[in-house]
Amino acid sequence: MIKVIIIGSGNVAQHLIAAFQNSQNLGTEIELVQVFSRQIGSVSHLLDLDHITNDFDTLTEADLYIIAVSDDAIAAISSKLPFKNRLVVHTSGSVPLNALDDNNRKGVFYPLQTFTKNKAVDFKIIPICLESENATDFQLLEKVAKAISDKIFAINSEQRKALHVAAVFVNNFVNHLYQIGNEICQEHQVPFEILKPLISETTQKIMVLSPSAAQTGPAKRNDIKTIQAHEAFLSNEDHLKIYKTLTQSIQHNGKKL
Amino acid sequence: MIKVIIIGSGNVAQHLIAAFQNSQNLGTEIELVQVFSRQIGSVSHLLDLDHITNDFDTLTEADLYIIAVSDDAIAAISSKLPFKNRLVVHTSGSVPLNALDDNNRKGVFYPLQTFTKNKAVDFKIIPICLESENATDFQLLEKVAKAISDKIFAINSEQRKALHVAAVFVNNFVNHLYQIGNEICQEHQVPFEILKPLISETTQKIMVLSPSAAQTGPAKRNDIKTIQAHEAFLSNEDHLKIYKTLTQSIQHNGKKL
Repeated sequence: MIKVIIIGSGNVAQHLIAAFQNSQNLGTEIELVQVFSRQIGSVSHLLDLDHITNDFDTLTEADLYIIAVSDDAIAAISSKLPFKNRLVVHTSGSVPLNALDDNNRKGVFYPLQTFTKNKAVDFKIIPICLESENATDFQLLEKVAKAISDKIFAINSEQRKALHVAAVFVNNFVNHLYQIGNEICQEHQVPFEILKPLISETTQKIMVLSPSAAQTGPAKRNDIKTIQAHEAFLSNEDHLKIYKTLTQSIQHNGKKL
Repeated sequence: MIKVIIIGSGNVAQHLIAAFQNSQNLGTEIELVQVFSRQIGSVSHLLDLDHITNDFDTLTEADLYIIAVSDDAIAAISSKLPFKNRLVVHTSGSVPLNALDDNNRKGVFYPLQTFTKNKAVDFKIIPICLESENATDFQLLEKVAKAISDKIFAINSEQRKALHVAAVFVNNFVNHLYQIGNEICQEHQVPFEILKPLISETTQKIMVLSPSAAQTGPAKRNDIKTIQAHEAFLSNEDHLKIYKTLTQSIQHNGKKL
């Protein structure tokens, strides 16, 4: 058995706990032996109390320690671990491998997904981006990752940084555009529901077409009349600034082609 | 039977033709009697030649004429119709009802979706936004729309304008963010595929949560360190400008709450 310990109790930690428990039920060789949570109560709905600790000194021996905490806390927590030369990884998209303390062997176990509390996700389709200092550790990370996901990628710290920035565009920023769509609808007494099939289809399209082939709209057509009408229509300053910035970027793309 | 004629042969026209043909096969009371296409060949794969014309003077009598052409051409085409006082609608999100010629009764039949050539869509879930000058015409439009879709909305020209602007944000602009995600991946030799489960989940989330409740990321957390690292990472000027503009807008939202 490969023994795994998760350190943390937030969204990512909780989804990982559930995923490892699932895989254990399916009979894989991964065993989640312990979870560290500052507040025992944060994870006590997920596993037995004798598998939870809030004291670093009671951490048992394991093949892999997964630190799933906020970016800012990773370095400090890795330096508090009371052992040496074991494999310790973090789960962050934006923190380099080297942020981990030198006392232990370093690695990254980054599941690229947006996790919502109380919303189950199918971990099998979540890409897990792995990095380690040596090949043996990579093989172990790969075994552990394969127990919960079908999509494993070797991604170094520089590539992971690119992925994380790209993820901000396609997740955080896209969601903010949804919010603006919602605000414009509310302002004009139109149900946001009307836009949902369009939102789904926009996503579906790029599963089969490249985003540049899927691009449509007034900016792409260089339809100045419609663009001006839209700009005149937008009363919110931030909405207008975003409209102009994104329209210009789409127009620049047209010129590059 | 309610007789319908479609004028146009582009994406929207072709998807409407297919939708009405489907509904006809299912035995609804709508009959697609004729299609006007400047180039007969553009729609000859969809219906028999004796149902296609490229001559306005040979348009037969019908209960409803649907002009599905580019925004710029709607007014001109509506003024070329060689009859009076019949019901003539257009399918555009951004053109007001009054752009149609005064010779006939005006209306709008706006299916809010992004249509791709050769990609079938399930018309039943596409919202159709209807507008007319009088109640009788509205009832007829409703009957026709219900034959192809389950989602019918009464939307006036001002509301439709808002919807169209909102659609630019959640469709055109969102797709452009996908493209930027793709560009950042390519630049750093990372497969864009890794981001697709995240893209799907981002959309899925707002089907159950409001976009403002679904918002995550460094801008939302006001994580200045990560924001600065991302800005330093972005070498493309347009990408950087979009990053800054959207980050600021998310931060402003946080302050409003």
